[in-house]
Amino acid sequence: MQLYIGNKNYSSWSLRPWLLMTHAGIPFEEIKLRLSFTEGSEFKNTLKKLAPTGKVPLLVDGGLVVWDTLAIAEYLAEKFPSKQLWPADRKARAHARSVCAEMHSGFGALRSHFPMNIEASLPHVGADVLRTQPEVVRDVERIVEMWTELLVQHGGPFLFGEFSVADAFYAPVVTRLRTYGVPVLEAVNGYIDRMLQLPAMQAWTKDALAEQDFLDFDEPYRTARA
Amino acid sequence: MQLYIGNKNYSSWSLRPWLLMTHAGIPFEEIKLRLSFTEGSEFKNTLKKLAPTGKVPLLVDGGLVVWDTLAIAEYLAEKFPSKQLWPADRKARAHARSVCAEMHSGFGALRSHFPMNIEASLPHVGADVLRTQPEVVRDVERIVEMWTELLVQHGGPFLFGEFSVADAFYAPVVTRLRTYGVPVLEAVNGYIDRMLQLPAMQAWTKDALAEQDFLDFDEPYRTARA
Ligand SMILES: N[C@@H](CCC(=O)N[C@@H](CS)C(=O)NCC(=O)O)C(=O)O
Ligand SMILES: N[C@@H](CCC(=O)N[C@@H](CS)C(=O)NCC(=O)O)C(=O)O
Repeated sequence: MQLYIGNKNYSSWSLRPWLLMTHAGIPFEEIKLRLSFTEGSEFKNTLKKLAPTGKVPLLVDGGLVVWDTLAIAEYLAEKFPSKQLWPADRKARAHARSVCAEMHSGFGALRSHFPMNIEASLPHVGADVLRTQPEVVRDVERIVEMWTELLVQHGGPFLFGEFSVADAFYAPVVTRLRTYGVPVLEAVNGYIDRMLQLPAMQAWTKDALAEQDFLDFDEPYRTARA
Repeated sequence: MQLYIGNKNYSSWSLRPWLLMTHAGIPFEEIKLRLSFTEGSEFKNTLKKLAPTGKVPLLVDGGLVVWDTLAIAEYLAEKFPSKQLWPADRKARAHARSVCAEMHSGFGALRSHFPMNIEASLPHVGADVLRTQPEVVRDVERIVEMWTELLVQHGGPFLFGEFSVADAFYAPVVTRLRTYGVPVLEAVNGYIDRMLQLPAMQAWTKDALAEQDFLDFDEPYRTARA
Protein backbone atom coordinates (compact mmCIF):
# COMPACT_ATOMS: atom_id res chain seq x y z
CA MET A 1 0.00 0.00 0.00
CA GLN A 2 1.04 3.56 -0.68
CA LEU A 3 -0.11 6.45 1.47
CA TYR A 4 0.15 9.85 -0.20
CA ILE A 5 0.57 12.67 2.28
CA GLY A 6 1.45 16.38 2.34
CA ASN A 7 4.05 18.30 4.38
CA LYS A 8 4.33 16.77 7.80
CA ASN A 9 4.60 20.19 9.41
CA TYR A 10 1.29 21.36 8.00
CA SER A 11 -0.92 18.57 6.74
CA SER A 12 -3.29 17.72 9.54
CA TRP A 13 -5.43 15.37 7.45
CA SER A 14 -2.35 13.43 6.37
CA LEU A 15 -1.26 12.91 9.96
CA ARG A 16 -4.41 10.98 10.82
CA PRO A 17 -4.07 7.85 8.65
CA TRP A 18 -0.26 7.98 8.82
CA LEU A 19 -0.39 7.83 12.61
CA LEU A 20 -3.08 5.17 12.57
CA MET A 21 -1.08 2.88 10.29
CA THR A 22 2.30 3.54 11.85
CA HIS A 23 1.07 3.06 15.40
CA ALA A 24 -0.78 -0.14 14.44
CA GLY A 25 2.24 -1.52 12.58
CA ILE A 26 0.48 -1.69 9.22
CA PRO A 27 3.23 -1.57 6.60
CA PHE A 28 2.97 1.05 3.86
CA GLU A 29 5.08 3.13 1.57
CA GLU A 30 4.91 6.84 2.31
CA ILE A 31 4.78 9.18 -0.66
CA LYS A 32 5.15 12.78 0.44
CA LEU A 33 4.16 15.67 -1.81
CA ARG A 34 4.69 19.36 -1.17
CA LEU A 35 1.20 20.75 -0.48
CA SER A 36 -0.32 22.99 -3.12
CA PHE A 37 -3.71 24.37 -4.07
CA THR A 38 -2.58 25.27 -7.57
CA GLU A 39 -3.73 23.34 -10.60
CA GLY A 40 -0.71 22.13 -12.56
CA SER A 41 1.51 21.76 -9.47
CA GLU A 42 3.29 18.45 -8.95
CA PHE A 43 0.96 17.86 -5.98
CA LYS A 44 -2.20 18.31 -8.02
CA ASN A 45 -0.88 16.52 -11.11
CA THR A 46 0.16 13.46 -9.13
CA LEU A 47 -3.04 13.25 -7.12
CA LYS A 48 -5.50 14.01 -9.92
CA LYS A 49 -4.16 11.03 -11.82
CA LEU A 50 -5.30 8.89 -8.90
CA ALA A 51 -8.52 10.47 -7.64
CA PRO A 52 -10.83 13.36 -8.51
CA THR A 53 -10.40 15.37 -5.34
CA GLY A 54 -6.69 16.09 -5.73
CA LYS A 55 -6.19 16.09 -1.97
CA VAL A 56 -4.16 14.20 0.58
CA PRO A 57 -4.39 11.78 2.28
CA LEU A 58 -4.93 9.17 -0.38
CA LEU A 59 -4.35 5.44 -0.05
CA VAL A 60 -3.51 3.14 -2.93
CA ASP A 61 -3.89 -0.59 -2.40
CA GLY A 62 -3.10 -2.38 -5.64
CA GLY A 63 -5.75 -1.25 -8.10
CA LEU A 64 -7.84 0.40 -5.42
CA VAL A 65 -7.69 4.10 -4.61
CA VAL A 66 -9.27 5.30 -1.38
CA TRP A 67 -9.45 9.00 -0.68
CA ASP A 68 -10.56 10.99 2.33
CA THR A 69 -9.40 10.24 5.86
CA LEU A 70 -12.60 8.71 7.10
CA ALA A 71 -12.95 6.31 4.17
CA ILE A 72 -9.28 5.33 4.58
CA ALA A 73 -9.82 4.61 8.27
CA GLU A 74 -12.86 2.42 7.57
CA TYR A 75 -11.01 0.63 4.80
CA LEU A 76 -8.07 -0.16 7.05
CA ALA A 77 -10.33 -1.25 9.91
CA GLU A 78 -12.04 -3.72 7.56
CA LYS A 79 -8.81 -4.97 6.02
CA PHE A 80 -6.98 -5.46 9.31
CA PRO A 81 -9.60 -6.61 11.82
CA SER A 82 -6.96 -7.99 14.18
CA LYS A 83 -5.55 -4.48 14.63
CA GLN A 84 -8.81 -3.37 16.26
CA LEU A 85 -8.59 0.13 14.86
CA TRP A 86 -12.10 0.83 16.17
CA PRO A 87 -13.05 -0.04 19.75
CA ALA A 88 -14.17 -3.68 20.02
CA ASP A 89 -17.32 -2.85 21.98
CA ARG A 90 -20.29 -2.05 19.73
CA LYS A 91 -21.45 0.88 21.80
CA ALA A 92 -17.98 2.37 22.17
CA ARG A 93 -17.44 1.90 18.45
CA ALA A 94 -20.59 3.86 17.60
CA HIS A 95 -19.48 6.59 20.00
CA ALA A 96 -16.00 6.65 18.47
CA ARG A 97 -17.49 7.01 15.00
CA SER A 98 -19.66 9.89 16.22
CA VAL A 99 -16.70 11.86 17.55
CA CYS A 100 -14.64 11.13 14.42
CA ALA A 101 -17.47 12.27 12.15
CA GLU A 102 -17.83 15.36 14.34
CA MET A 103 -14.15 16.16 13.77
CA HIS A 104 -14.41 15.34 10.09
CA SER A 105 -17.16 17.85 9.37
CA GLY A 106 -16.79 20.28 12.22
CA PHE A 107 -14.57 22.50 14.36
CA GLY A 108 -14.20 24.92 11.49
CA ALA A 109 -13.22 27.85 13.72
CA LEU A 110 -10.46 25.90 15.42
CA ARG A 111 -9.20 24.58 12.12
CA SER A 112 -9.02 27.94 10.40
CA HIS A 113 -7.66 30.00 13.30
CA PHE A 114 -5.27 27.37 14.60
CA PRO A 115 -3.85 25.66 11.51
CA MET A 116 -1.48 22.81 12.28
CA ASN A 117 2.11 24.03 12.36
CA ILE A 118 4.26 21.62 14.31
CA GLU A 119 7.53 23.54 14.26
CA ALA A 120 5.98 26.87 15.25
CA SER A 121 5.42 28.15 18.78
CA LEU A 122 2.72 30.80 18.81
CA PRO A 123 1.31 31.17 22.32
CA HIS A 124 0.81 34.94 21.86
CA VAL A 125 -1.33 34.22 18.79
CA GLY A 126 -3.20 31.60 20.79
CA ALA A 127 -3.98 34.06 23.59
CA ASP A 128 -5.12 36.64 21.07
CA VAL A 129 -7.39 34.26 19.20
CA LEU A 130 -8.95 32.97 22.41
CA ARG A 131 -9.67 36.55 23.49
CA THR A 132 -11.25 37.63 20.21
CA GLN A 133 -12.83 34.51 18.70
CA PRO A 134 -15.64 33.01 20.77
CA GLU A 135 -16.20 30.29 18.18
CA VAL A 136 -12.66 29.02 18.70
CA VAL A 137 -13.21 29.05 22.44
CA ARG A 138 -16.37 27.02 21.93
CA ASP A 139 -14.55 24.48 19.75
CA VAL A 140 -11.73 24.10 22.29
CA GLU A 141 -14.22 23.73 25.13
CA ARG A 142 -16.17 21.07 23.30
CA ILE A 143 -13.02 19.06 22.56
CA VAL A 144 -11.67 19.37 26.10
CA GLU A 145 -15.03 18.30 27.49
CA MET A 146 -15.16 15.36 25.07
CA TRP A 147 -11.65 14.17 25.93
CA THR A 148 -12.21 14.56 29.66
CA GLU A 149 -15.43 12.56 29.59
CA LEU A 150 -13.98 9.81 27.43
CA LEU A 151 -10.83 9.48 29.52
CA VAL A 152 -12.93 9.12 32.66
CA GLN A 153 -15.48 6.82 31.05
CA HIS A 154 -12.97 4.41 29.52
CA GLY A 155 -10.22 4.91 32.09
CA GLY A 156 -7.56 5.91 29.55
CA PRO A 157 -4.79 5.92 28.55
CA PHE A 158 -6.43 6.85 25.25
CA LEU A 159 -9.88 8.18 24.40
CA PHE A 160 -11.54 4.77 24.18
CA GLY A 161 -9.06 2.90 26.36
CA GLU A 162 -6.67 1.46 23.81
CA PHE A 163 -5.48 3.71 20.98
CA SER A 164 -8.12 3.87 18.22
CA VAL A 165 -9.10 5.81 15.12
CA ALA A 166 -10.52 8.47 17.44
CA ASP A 167 -7.07 9.30 18.83
CA ALA A 168 -5.65 9.48 15.33
CA PHE A 169 -8.46 11.86 14.36
CA TYR A 170 -7.76 14.21 17.26
CA ALA A 171 -3.95 14.03 17.00
CA PRO A 172 -3.70 17.25 14.97
CA VAL A 173 -5.70 19.03 17.68
CA VAL A 174 -3.19 17.77 20.24
CA THR A 175 -0.35 19.45 18.34
CA ARG A 176 -2.38 22.64 17.84
CA LEU A 177 -3.14 23.06 21.53
CA ARG A 178 0.63 22.96 22.13
CA THR A 179 1.59 25.21 19.20
CA TYR A 180 -0.88 27.90 20.28
CA GLY A 181 -0.25 27.41 24.00
CA VAL A 182 -3.89 26.79 24.82
CA PRO A 183 -4.26 26.31 28.58
CA VAL A 184 -6.11 23.10 29.45
CA LEU A 185 -6.90 21.05 32.52
CA GLU A 186 -4.42 18.65 34.05
CA ALA A 187 -6.27 15.51 32.87
CA VAL A 188 -6.22 16.72 29.31
CA ASN A 189 -2.56 17.69 29.57
CA GLY A 190 -1.75 14.12 30.53
CA TYR A 191 -3.50 12.88 27.42
CA ILE A 192 -1.67 15.40 25.26
CA ASP A 193 1.65 14.24 26.72
CA ARG A 194 0.84 10.59 26.10
CA MET A 195 -0.13 11.32 22.53
CA LEU A 196 2.99 13.36 21.81
CA GLN A 197 5.18 10.65 23.34
CA LEU A 198 3.88 7.87 21.11
CA PRO A 199 6.79 6.63 19.00
CA ALA A 200 4.75 7.20 15.86
CA MET A 201 4.01 10.82 16.86
CA GLN A 202 7.67 11.37 17.68
CA ALA A 203 8.66 10.04 14.28
CA TRP A 204 6.15 12.31 12.51
CA THR A 205 7.30 15.32 14.56
CA LYS A 206 10.96 14.63 13.81
CA ASP A 207 10.22 14.52 10.08
CA ALA A 208 8.09 17.67 10.36
CA LEU A 209 10.94 19.56 12.02
CA ALA A 210 13.40 18.37 9.40
CA GLU A 211 11.31 19.73 6.52
CA GLN A 212 12.17 23.39 7.02
CA ASP A 213 9.67 24.40 4.40
CA PHE A 214 7.50 27.52 4.51
CA LEU A 215 4.08 27.52 2.85
CA ASP A 216 2.48 30.97 2.78
CA PHE A 217 -1.06 29.70 2.48
CA ASP A 218 -0.67 27.72 5.70
CA GLU A 219 0.97 30.60 7.59
CA PRO A 220 -1.56 33.22 8.64
CA TYR A 221 0.71 34.34 11.49
CA ARG A 222 4.38 34.01 10.50
CA THR A 223 6.17 35.78 7.69
CA ALA A 224 9.15 33.45 7.71
CA ARG A 225 10.55 30.53 9.66
CA ALA A 226 11.84 31.56 13.09
CA MET B 1 -34.95 3.17 17.56
CA GLN B 2 -35.76 6.87 17.43
CA LEU B 3 -34.44 9.12 14.70
CA TYR B 4 -34.43 12.81 15.56
CA ILE B 5 -34.69 15.04 12.52
CA GLY B 6 -35.30 18.68 11.61
CA ASN B 7 -37.78 20.26 9.20
CA LYS B 8 -38.20 18.03 6.19
CA ASN B 9 -38.25 21.02 3.87
CA TYR B 10 -34.85 22.25 4.99
CA SER B 11 -32.84 19.66 6.87
CA SER B 12 -30.55 18.05 4.35
CA TRP B 13 -28.56 16.10 6.92
CA SER B 14 -31.76 14.67 8.39
CA LEU B 15 -32.90 13.43 5.00
CA ARG B 16 -29.89 11.14 4.60
CA PRO B 17 -30.43 8.60 7.42
CA TRP B 18 -34.22 8.95 7.19
CA LEU B 19 -34.14 7.95 3.54
CA LEU B 20 -31.63 5.19 4.19
CA MET B 21 -33.75 3.60 6.91
CA THR B 22 -37.09 4.13 5.23
CA HIS B 23 -35.94 2.79 1.88
CA ALA B 24 -34.31 -0.23 3.53
CA GLY B 25 -37.39 -0.94 5.64
CA ILE B 26 -35.62 -0.49 8.95
CA PRO B 27 -38.33 0.38 11.48
CA PHE B 28 -37.88 3.54 13.55
CA GLU B 29 -39.83 6.22 15.30
CA GLU B 30 -39.42 9.65 13.75
CA ILE B 31 -39.09 12.59 16.13
CA LYS B 32 -39.24 15.87 14.26
CA LEU B 33 -38.03 19.11 15.81
CA ARG B 34 -38.31 22.59 14.36
CA LEU B 35 -34.74 23.55 13.39
CA SER B 36 -33.06 26.22 15.48
CA PHE B 37 -29.57 27.54 16.12
CA THR B 38 -30.60 29.29 19.31
CA GLU B 39 -29.56 27.99 22.73
CA GLY B 40 -32.64 27.46 24.85
CA SER B 41 -34.90 26.56 21.93
CA GLU B 42 -36.92 23.34 22.12
CA PHE B 43 -34.66 21.95 19.40
CA LYS B 44 -31.46 22.63 21.33
CA ASN B 45 -32.88 21.67 24.72
CA THR B 46 -34.14 18.33 23.47
CA LEU B 47 -30.96 17.44 21.58
CA LYS B 48 -28.45 18.66 24.16
CA LYS B 49 -29.97 16.25 26.66
CA LEU B 50 -29.00 13.45 24.31
CA ALA B 51 -25.69 14.50 22.75
CA PRO B 52 -23.19 17.35 22.99
CA THR B 53 -23.50 18.61 19.42
CA GLY B 54 -27.15 19.65 19.61
CA LYS B 55 -27.67 18.85 15.94
CA VAL B 56 -29.83 16.57 13.87
CA PRO B 57 -29.78 13.83 12.75
CA LEU B 58 -29.41 11.85 15.92
CA LEU B 59 -30.24 8.18 16.43
CA VAL B 60 -31.22 6.65 19.75
CA ASP B 61 -31.10 2.87 20.07
CA GLY B 62 -31.98 1.89 23.61
CA GLY B 63 -29.25 3.38 25.79
CA LEU B 64 -27.07 4.24 22.82
CA VAL B 65 -26.98 7.67 21.20
CA VAL B 66 -25.33 8.01 17.80
CA TRP B 67 -24.91 11.45 16.28
CA ASP B 68 -23.67 12.62 12.93
CA THR B 69 -24.91 11.20 9.65
CA LEU B 70 -21.84 9.20 8.81
CA ALA B 71 -21.63 7.51 12.21
CA ILE B 72 -25.36 6.71 11.99
CA ALA B 73 -24.90 5.15 8.55
CA GLU B 74 -22.00 2.97 9.75
CA TYR B 75 -23.95 1.97 12.84
CA LEU B 76 -26.97 0.90 10.80
CA ALA B 77 -24.80 -0.96 8.29
CA GLU B 78 -23.24 -2.93 11.13
CA LYS B 79 -26.54 -3.59 12.89
CA PHE B 80 -28.43 -4.67 9.78
CA PRO B 81 -25.91 -6.54 7.62
CA SER B 82 -28.66 -8.22 5.60
CA LYS B 83 -29.84 -4.82 4.37
CA GLN B 84 -26.53 -4.32 2.54
CA LEU B 85 -26.50 -0.59 3.13
CA TRP B 86 -22.96 -0.43 1.73
CA PRO B 87 -22.08 -2.15 -1.56
CA ALA B 88 -21.23 -5.82 -1.01
CA ASP B 89 -18.04 -5.66 -3.08
CA ARG B 90 -15.00 -4.58 -1.03
CA LYS B 91 -13.66 -2.27 -3.71
CA ALA B 92 -17.03 -0.68 -4.43
CA ARG B 93 -17.56 -0.27 -0.70
CA ALA B 94 -14.28 1.62 -0.28
CA HIS B 95 -15.22 3.81 -3.24
CA ALA B 96 -18.69 4.45 -1.78
CA ARG B 97 -17.14 5.46 1.52
CA SER B 98 -14.80 7.85 -0.29
CA VAL B 99 -17.64 9.67 -2.05
CA CYS B 100 -19.70 9.80 1.15
CA ALA B 101 -16.79 11.22 3.13
CA GLU B 102 -16.24 13.71 0.30
CA MET B 103 -19.85 14.87 0.65
CA HIS B 104 -19.63 14.88 4.43
CA SER B 105 -16.70 17.29 4.59
CA GLY B 106 -16.91 19.05 1.26
CA PHE B 107 -19.00 20.88 -1.34
CA GLY B 108 -19.19 23.89 0.93
CA ALA B 109 -19.98 26.31 -1.90
CA LEU B 110 -22.87 24.22 -3.15
CA ARG B 111 -24.20 23.75 0.34
CA SER B 112 -24.14 27.41 1.27
CA HIS B 113 -25.37 28.87 -2.02
CA PHE B 114 -27.95 26.17 -2.72
CA PRO B 115 -29.47 25.30 0.66
CA MET B 116 -32.04 22.52 0.52
CA ASN B 117 -35.53 23.92 0.15
CA ILE B 118 -37.85 21.30 -1.24
CA GLU B 119 -40.98 23.41 -1.65
CA ALA B 120 -39.21 26.31 -3.33
CA SER B 121 -38.59 26.73 -7.05
CA LEU B 122 -35.71 29.11 -7.64
CA PRO B 123 -34.32 28.59 -11.15
CA HIS B 124 -33.56 32.33 -11.53
CA VAL B 125 -31.45 32.17 -8.36
CA GLY B 126 -29.77 29.06 -9.71
CA ALA B 127 -28.86 30.76 -12.98
CA ASP B 128 -27.53 33.76 -11.10
CA VAL B 129 -25.40 31.71 -8.73
CA LEU B 130 -23.96 29.62 -11.57
CA ARG B 131 -23.02 32.82 -13.41
CA THR B 132 -21.34 34.50 -10.44
CA GLN B 133 -19.97 31.69 -8.24
CA PRO B 134 -17.28 29.59 -9.91
CA GLU B 135 -16.88 27.47 -6.77
CA VAL B 136 -20.49 26.37 -7.01
CA VAL B 137 -19.97 25.51 -10.68
CA ARG B 138 -16.95 23.43 -9.70
CA ASP B 139 -18.93 21.59 -7.02
CA VAL B 140 -21.78 20.84 -9.43
CA GLU B 141 -19.34 19.68 -12.11
CA ARG B 142 -17.58 17.36 -9.71
CA ILE B 143 -20.85 15.80 -8.57
CA VAL B 144 -22.20 15.41 -12.09
CA GLU B 145 -18.93 13.82 -13.19
CA MET B 146 -18.99 11.49 -10.17
CA TRP B 147 -22.57 10.37 -10.76
CA THR B 148 -22.02 9.89 -14.49
CA GLU B 149 -18.94 7.75 -13.94
CA LEU B 150 -20.55 5.65 -11.23
CA LEU B 151 -23.74 5.08 -13.22
CA VAL B 152 -21.69 3.88 -16.19
CA GLN B 153 -19.30 1.82 -14.08
CA HIS B 154 -21.95 -0.01 -12.07
CA GLY B 155 -24.67 0.07 -14.71
CA GLY B 156 -27.26 1.85 -12.48
CA PRO B 157 -30.00 2.26 -11.56
CA PHE B 158 -28.27 3.79 -8.51
CA LEU B 159 -24.73 5.02 -7.95
CA PHE B 160 -23.30 1.64 -6.98
CA GLY B 161 -25.94 -0.50 -8.70
CA GLU B 162 -28.41 -1.17 -5.92
CA PHE B 163 -29.41 1.73 -3.67
CA SER B 164 -26.74 2.32 -0.98
CA VAL B 165 -25.59 4.84 1.62
CA ALA B 166 -24.03 6.81 -1.23
CA ASP B 167 -27.42 7.54 -2.80
CA ALA B 168 -28.79 8.59 0.57
CA PHE B 169 -25.82 10.94 0.99
CA TYR B 170 -26.38 12.63 -2.36
CA ALA B 171 -30.20 12.75 -2.08
CA PRO B 172 -30.23 16.37 -0.84
CA VAL B 173 -28.12 17.36 -3.85
CA VAL B 174 -30.72 15.73 -6.08
CA THR B 175 -33.42 17.98 -4.63
CA ARG B 176 -31.20 21.06 -4.83
CA LEU B 177 -30.43 20.59 -8.52
CA ARG B 178 -34.20 20.62 -9.13
CA THR B 179 -34.99 23.53 -6.77
CA TYR B 180 -32.34 25.73 -8.39
CA GLY B 181 -33.02 24.46 -11.92
CA VAL B 182 -29.44 23.44 -12.56
CA PRO B 183 -29.14 22.09 -16.10
CA VAL B 184 -27.51 18.65 -16.23
CA LEU B 185 -26.91 15.93 -18.77
CA GLU B 186 -29.57 13.41 -19.75
CA ALA B 187 -27.91 10.50 -17.88
CA VAL B 188 -27.85 12.48 -14.67
CA ASN B 189 -31.45 13.61 -15.17
CA GLY B 190 -32.50 9.99 -15.33
CA TYR B 191 -30.80 9.34 -12.01
CA ILE B 192 -32.45 12.41 -10.46
CA ASP B 193 -35.85 11.19 -11.64
CA ARG B 194 -35.28 7.72 -10.25
CA MET B 195 -34.24 9.14 -6.90
CA LEU B 196 -37.22 11.50 -6.68
CA GLN B 197 -39.59 8.69 -7.59
CA LEU B 198 -38.48 6.40 -4.79
CA PRO B 199 -41.45 5.85 -2.47
CA ALA B 200 -39.33 6.97 0.48
CA MET B 201 -38.36 10.21 -1.30
CA GLN B 202 -41.99 10.82 -2.26
CA ALA B 203 -43.04 10.34 1.35
CA TRP B 204 -40.37 12.78 2.58
CA THR B 205 -41.33 15.31 -0.10
CA LYS B 206 -45.02 15.07 0.75
CA ASP B 207 -44.26 15.76 4.42
CA ALA B 208 -41.93 18.60 3.47
CA LEU B 209 -44.65 20.27 1.39
CA ALA B 210 -47.16 19.86 4.21
CA GLU B 211 -44.96 21.69 6.71
CA GLN B 212 -45.60 25.19 5.41
CA ASP B 213 -42.99 26.59 7.75
CA PHE B 214 -40.60 29.44 6.97
CA LEU B 215 -37.18 29.58 8.61
CA ASP B 216 -35.36 32.84 7.92
CA PHE B 217 -31.90 31.43 8.52
CA ASP B 218 -32.45 28.81 5.83
CA GLU B 219 -33.92 31.30 3.34
CA PRO B 220 -31.22 33.45 1.76
CA TYR B 221 -33.41 34.07 -1.28
CA ARG B 222 -37.09 34.22 -0.28
CA THR B 223 -38.74 36.70 2.06
CA ALA B 224 -41.88 34.64 2.52
CA ARG B 225 -43.49 31.44 1.27
CA ALA B 226 -44.74 31.81 -2.31
N1 LIG C 1 -11.96 15.69 3.88
C1 LIG C 1 -10.62 15.44 3.42
C2 LIG C 1 -9.77 16.68 3.59
C3 LIG C 1 -8.42 16.56 2.94
C4 LIG C 1 -7.71 17.91 2.78
O1 LIG C 1 -8.36 18.96 2.80
N2 LIG C 1 -6.37 17.85 2.58
C5 LIG C 1 -5.57 19.04 2.35
C6 LIG C 1 -4.21 18.95 3.01
S1 LIG C 1 -4.29 18.78 4.77
C7 LIG C 1 -5.33 19.17 0.85
O2 LIG C 1 -4.96 18.22 0.19
N3 LIG C 1 -5.52 20.37 0.31
C8 LIG C 1 -5.29 20.65 -1.07
C9 LIG C 1 -6.50 21.28 -1.70
O3 LIG C 1 -7.52 21.45 -1.01
O4 LIG C 1 -6.41 21.60 -2.90
C10 LIG C 1 -10.05 14.27 4.19
O5 LIG C 1 -10.57 13.98 5.28
O6 LIG C 1 -9.14 13.58 3.70
N1 LIG D 1 -21.97 16.75 10.35
C1 LIG D 1 -23.32 16.71 10.85
C2 LIG D 1 -24.09 17.92 10.39
C3 LIG D 1 -25.43 18.06 11.07
C4 LIG D 1 -26.05 19.45 10.92
O1 LIG D 1 -25.34 20.43 10.66
N2 LIG D 1 -27.40 19.52 11.09
C5 LIG D 1 -28.11 20.79 11.05
C6 LIG D 1 -29.48 20.64 10.43
S1 LIG D 1 -29.42 20.09 8.75
C7 LIG D 1 -28.34 21.27 12.47
O2 LIG D 1 -28.75 20.51 13.32
N3 LIG D 1 -28.07 22.55 12.74
C8 LIG D 1 -28.26 23.15 14.01
C9 LIG D 1 -26.99 23.81 14.50
O3 LIG D 1 -25.97 23.76 13.80
O4 LIG D 1 -27.04 24.41 15.59
C10 LIG D 1 -23.98 15.43 10.37
O5 LIG D 1 -23.49 14.88 9.37
O6 LIG D 1 -24.91 14.94 10.99
